[in-house]
Amino acid sequence: MKKVNSKTTSGRMAEGVLAGERRALARAITLIESTRRDHRSEADVLLEQILPHSGKSIRIGISGVPGVGKSTFIEAFGMHLIKAGHRVAVLAIDPSSQRTGGSILGDKTRMELLSRQQSAFIRPSPAGKTLGGVARRTREAMLLCEAAGFDVILVETVGVGQSETAVSEMVDMFLLLLLPGGGDELQGIKKGIMELADMVVVNKADGDLIPAANRAAAEYHAALGLMRPSSPNWKPAVKKCSALQEEGIAEIWEAIGRFREKLWESGEIPQKRAQQAKAWMWNEIRETLVIAFREDPQVAAALHQMESGVIEGQLAPASAANRLLNLFLKPS
Amino acid sequence: MKKVNSKTTSGRMAEGVLAGERRALARAITLIESTRRDHRSEADVLLEQILPHSGKSIRIGISGVPGVGKSTFIEAFGMHLIKAGHRVAVLAIDPSSQRTGGSILGDKTRMELLSRQQSAFIRPSPAGKTLGGVARRTREAMLLCEAAGFDVILVETVGVGQSETAVSEMVDMFLLLLLPGGGDELQGIKKGIMELADMVVVNKADGDLIPAANRAAAEYHAALGLMRPSSPNWKPAVKKCSALQEEGIAEIWEAIGRFREKLWESGEIPQKRAQQAKAWMWNEIRETLVIAFREDPQVAAALHQMESGVIEGQLAPASAANRLLNLFLKPS
Repeated sequence: MKKVNSKTTSGRMAEGVLAGERRALARAITLIESTRRDHRSEADVLLEQILPHSGKSIRIGISGVPGVGKSTFIEAFGMHLIKAGHRVAVLAIDPSSQRTGGSILGDKTRMELLSRQQSAFIRPSPAGKTLGGVARRTREAMLLCEAAGFDVILVETVGVGQSETAVSEMVDMFLLLLLPGGGDELQGIKKGIMELADMVVVNKADGDLIPAANRAAAEYHAALGLMRPSSPNWKPAVKKCSALQEEGIAEIWEAIGRFREKLWESGEIPQKRAQQAKAWMWNEIRETLVIAFREDPQVAAALHQMESGVIEGQLAPASAANRLLNLFLKPS
Repeated sequence: MKKVNSKTTSGRMAEGVLAGERRALARAITLIESTRRDHRSEADVLLEQILPHSGKSIRIGISGVPGVGKSTFIEAFGMHLIKAGHRVAVLAIDPSSQRTGGSILGDKTRMELLSRQQSAFIRPSPAGKTLGGVARRTREAMLLCEAAGFDVILVETVGVGQSETAVSEMVDMFLLLLLPGGGDELQGIKKGIMELADMVVVNKADGDLIPAANRAAAEYHAALGLMRPSSPNWKPAVKKCSALQEEGIAEIWEAIGRFREKLWESGEIPQKRAQQAKAWMWNEIRETLVIAFREDPQVAAALHQMESGVIEGQLAPASAANRLLNLFLKPS
């Protein structure tokens, strides 16, 4: 294991994170969220120091439409895990959020009980202009939480977003919360989301809604049966629960345990993580290249006219692309 | 309308294409498929000349697993259209193909009757190293076919490919051919393909397979009902046919007519085409930027080590991306 150099700021920060100090962890996440250039260099050094200590968690993505009861579910699920001796970090991805990195008031209200636990760490979505930026910082926060000894990481999608795919690309398992609405609800969720799910949980399966939840679970089961499972070793499971009444939570955690066991044994999780890391590097590269391209003064000056010409059918897309690329790539 | 300058090579070629001459069309497609730099400039001039005359067709993507009877279907469907007075062009997308642009022997054998028709034009998939390259040339061939007066363009995916999304991004309507296998078959097709379909056609609905085809059609109908339709004005239709016995073909063409009418009236098709053209420009830009990045000598020298470090968990993906980007973007 790499020895931490405690003489530098990032070295002291790394020591605090590795000792599981919550304040050091919070400060470290603030550092990686900063867009200041000098902060970014410090963040890179910090990340390199904690990287060998990351990875020892199960990373679970949790998604679902607003109103499905995500906060209530995470509160009940998190409390269940903490009672079983786990340390739980909750991160959120929400590119549409206007919240700044520092304010967690919203999340404290959303998960009142969980947010007061010593073994829980709740961090809202960082502010960001692009999903790529928010996703990067959430990924890095995940690594920091792991280094600080959190062994269950919940990455939540907030709002109705484009973020489900981004979350599925940073977790081991993707859990989709659904209402007892059946086919009607499936029509409302974004295309392809259902196919990302390793587990579907029908929430609000209590009181009057129990028959509807049973019907919905059967429908979701049939729908998943028509789709190709993403792993040869795991058939997406459908579970019911009532987060409000804390029912069905233990069964969900047991099923996650089976998932984890099968996919660690088969080597799929380490392989998936390696692929995710590589894909992340390339996403960063692609996104930065396009930003640099758009910010090039000559490209910026010509872009609007080229785009309009293409949209109006006066300019062939490949020709427009070539002209702009010549402005950017031509050696000055 | 733009006046064609007949004094240049590309001007003469454009005149031939616009006059509907098959040889000129074939030569024009060969030109746009060329990777030679001077050919590419000529191709750009040619495309600009024919662009105002393109767009007057219905663009239909046709996909399906090998063995579903795609060639037989296109033959029967194409012959039906020609008898109704249409001019039909068949293009193929197959990035895995080793065929060169000139050889159409394979396709002539596949669609023997259709290939002999004056009102049909069959062109195989261009050879290409990347799907992006093949897709670009197929798109451009589509524009040329339209300028030459072909009013129905069929873009076929060949083989088991990654090409379905690329095809769906260049057509007005995406038609998925399926076998009477029902849910079992759906599990075999690539994730997300079903959701691209504006129409599902169960082929081989003849003889002993009629009951199975009826069951499959009902299953596909239910599956499509669970998915969000891609247009507010069109609910994906499920049709049955026997391409071999030429049954059900007329009904499919009628349904395509309804689709076309509704989506032209609502303005969706022109809007979709404008979006597709813009997306195409940006795909070209992104793809070329990544190629230039990979080909940069400094990047090429460092890439392997960075990628390995990321995959093995020794290097944070964002740090690796930053280091490589600094090599590429730093002013020399």
